[in-house]
Amino acid sequence: MVDFNIETVKDAYSLLSNIVRKTSLNKSPYLSGKNEIYIKLENLQLTGSFKLRGAYYKISKLSDSDKEKGVIACSAGNHAQGVALAAHKNNIKSTIFIPATAPLSKIEATKSYGAEIRLIDGVYDDAYIEAAKYQNETGSKFIHPFDDLEVISGQGTIALEILEQLSDVDAVVVPIGGGGLISGVAAVIKTLKPDCKVYGVQAENAASMYESIKNKERTKLNLVNTFADGTAVKYPGELTFELCNKYVDEIFTVSESEIASAILALMEKEKTVAEGAGALPVAACMFDKIPLKNKKIVCIISGGNIDFKILSNVLTRALLKNGRFSNMTVDLLDQPGELNKLTSAILGTGANILEIVRNYTLKDIPLNKCSLNVMLETRNKEHLEELKKTLQINGFNATFDS
Amino acid sequence: MVDFNIETVKDAYSLLSNIVRKTSLNKSPYLSGKNEIYIKLENLQLTGSFKLRGAYYKISKLSDSDKEKGVIACSAGNHAQGVALAAHKNNIKSTIFIPATAPLSKIEATKSYGAEIRLIDGVYDDAYIEAAKYQNETGSKFIHPFDDLEVISGQGTIALEILEQLSDVDAVVVPIGGGGLISGVAAVIKTLKPDCKVYGVQAENAASMYESIKNKERTKLNLVNTFADGTAVKYPGELTFELCNKYVDEIFTVSESEIASAILALMEKEKTVAEGAGALPVAACMFDKIPLKNKKIVCIISGGNIDFKILSNVLTRALLKNGRFSNMTVDLLDQPGELNKLTSAILGTGANILEIVRNYTLKDIPLNKCSLNVMLETRNKEHLEELKKTLQINGFNATFDS
Repeated sequence: MVDFNIETVKDAYSLLSNIVRKTSLNKSPYLSGKNEIYIKLENLQLTGSFKLRGAYYKISKLSDSDKEKGVIACSAGNHAQGVALAAHKNNIKSTIFIPATAPLSKIEATKSYGAEIRLIDGVYDDAYIEAAKYQNETGSKFIHPFDDLEVISGQGTIALEILEQLSDVDAVVVPIGGGGLISGVAAVIKTLKPDCKVYGVQAENAASMYESIKNKERTKLNLVNTFADGTAVKYPGELTFELCNKYVDEIFTVSESEIASAILALMEKEKTVAEGAGALPVAACMFDKIPLKNKKIVCIISGGNIDFKILSNVLTRALLKNGRFSNMTVDLLDQPGELNKLTSAILGTGANILEIVRNYTLKDIPLNKCSLNVMLETRNKEHLEELKKTLQINGFNATFDS
Repeated sequence: MVDFNIETVKDAYSLLSNIVRKTSLNKSPYLSGKNEIYIKLENLQLTGSFKLRGAYYKISKLSDSDKEKGVIACSAGNHAQGVALAAHKNNIKSTIFIPATAPLSKIEATKSYGAEIRLIDGVYDDAYIEAAKYQNETGSKFIHPFDDLEVISGQGTIALEILEQLSDVDAVVVPIGGGGLISGVAAVIKTLKPDCKVYGVQAENAASMYESIKNKERTKLNLVNTFADGTAVKYPGELTFELCNKYVDEIFTVSESEIASAILALMEKEKTVAEGAGALPVAACMFDKIPLKNKKIVCIISGGNIDFKILSNVLTRALLKNGRFSNMTVDLLDQPGELNKLTSAILGTGANILEIVRNYTLKDIPLNKCSLNVMLETRNKEHLEELKKTLQINGFNATFDS
């Protein structure tokens, strides 16, 4: 039995008060539909995620002799940055084991908080083996990313902030990876305001807690594959499984494309950068997973450390979806003047040609014709439709990818 | 002489208190260098920019008979959205004239606040002519985007918030387009805390206020060309010119690539989406235009309504700059097996090939050779350097764009 105590969270809250940013809770008319949606911008937290809270509280509670030996973490992500900054703010040494394949930006960020970085060839598991070895040699404390009651209590401070900022909240929606954040939040909410719902959200390709609750036992997934990498956890914690079982009302799953849409909506409507994990609650609301109506729902945007390559792909999809960008295949008579007819017709609509590439190898095209791939920029969907119509009227046989 | 009165701003502040979001002022360790940088996140304001403040105050001060006739604005940008929402919140009608070339997303946003939209073929000036006609016919009030003392006083409320949030601020850095925002902010700051500096920032390709102050008279630019489109104003206002002359300490200019870097830093380090105009103050700090040291500087992030196409381009540049993405030209012997040697060498470094295109028409290449353009994805700059070295060791003659 986990021995959760609200006083521990209150202790963490007071210890953290001068350390963390009290992040905004904004009502979002733009994301609201059936329910009134509020976003808790924990992506604006120092280090770009909530992880600083639990790491700081855990480290500040270590004995002096433990502090002297320093702390260890193994992570390429938000936890690494949280531990590094928390150790720095406690004036102790941290050694962070990071798989060498991690993006430079995350390594640099962790280093910038004063951590000693050990880059380990291979993946997470290889880094973990080295971290364990180092722990045996040095006696440094290993800071678990989620399965630790003090870490969980630190994350729970977010719920105290939410209750302060919106006392009549009806539901809180929380991303789940290992379960540290939701365990702290749910335990606090159900202790102080039991009628408030707490819902969890996981990526359907990394739904280990969802499966575990369904199976009534901790269930290990063989493979997790989601661009919400902050929640790509194969095996929930023991403590977190127990706390979720006890305090969480329900867990929902969302698809990769639903997560991408939520990231986009947060950027476009709320001007805020969420990572995949951080967008899970908004995805669940946007795609109508939450069984409520006319309620005040807080979505915790847990972090904003998204890789720019992924963000760039999300934007490209958005441009395609909004008719700003398209790829067309068109057949032309293979003779001088034909291409000019095409570019003139396109010019007439005000669309912009980005690239023209010839397909040499299509078999089912008449020998006197050729096929072109044309990448186009248009203003919006209406404009794209206008372009399609114009091409049709001018006798071009064009098909569009989207 | 402008008759600025701090009481008007205080009146606006109290009227706006339940209307606008009181936006966060966050200390940014990541953007701080010589000085301590704070960011005032007015991009998180309703409608995605500060414009709601001035528009709301102006409209709420109209006489009942004026209110009955409704209001007009001409804009494709933040002002349109500010007036539309302000009118809606005052329960009056708004008619917004928008050039038909505006992005659909901005038109839709304006419409969503309940405005009647008149899409006018052509550019801003065409829309303005129609708006003026409509004003003559209907007697509706035209809400000026900046050259109006009540609008300016509404924008000045941001300075009251800043003084409340950081009473020992040493300097406030403000973007300038027409000058409405900085006029209100500077007048407030110099009235209540005269030792605090107020600096303006303009894009060097749209520096009409900068030129006007330098020339000691309002100066009209023939051409403004900046992706900070919120500040692309050819001619400063009369009131705003006078107020800037009186209250602003100095104006600096920044280049387009400096603006892009600032947008990127705000996304990467502060998880917040700024439009070009909104990033101007951070650009000025990052590129060392501000003549201060060890001071507390507030940068007003005035808005976040950036076009996704531009944001996508900013991200692509960032990926190039960070060694995540590159374009290489390489010569090969034109015979089977040579390409495989190349792809094997690249594979050995863990880099990812995105595209290979052959250059058919290079004149200065030996006849037994061919030239390829290869687009590559790498993990970071170090990884890119490793790839370059590997190719050199394996005898490939490769050159990289960046």
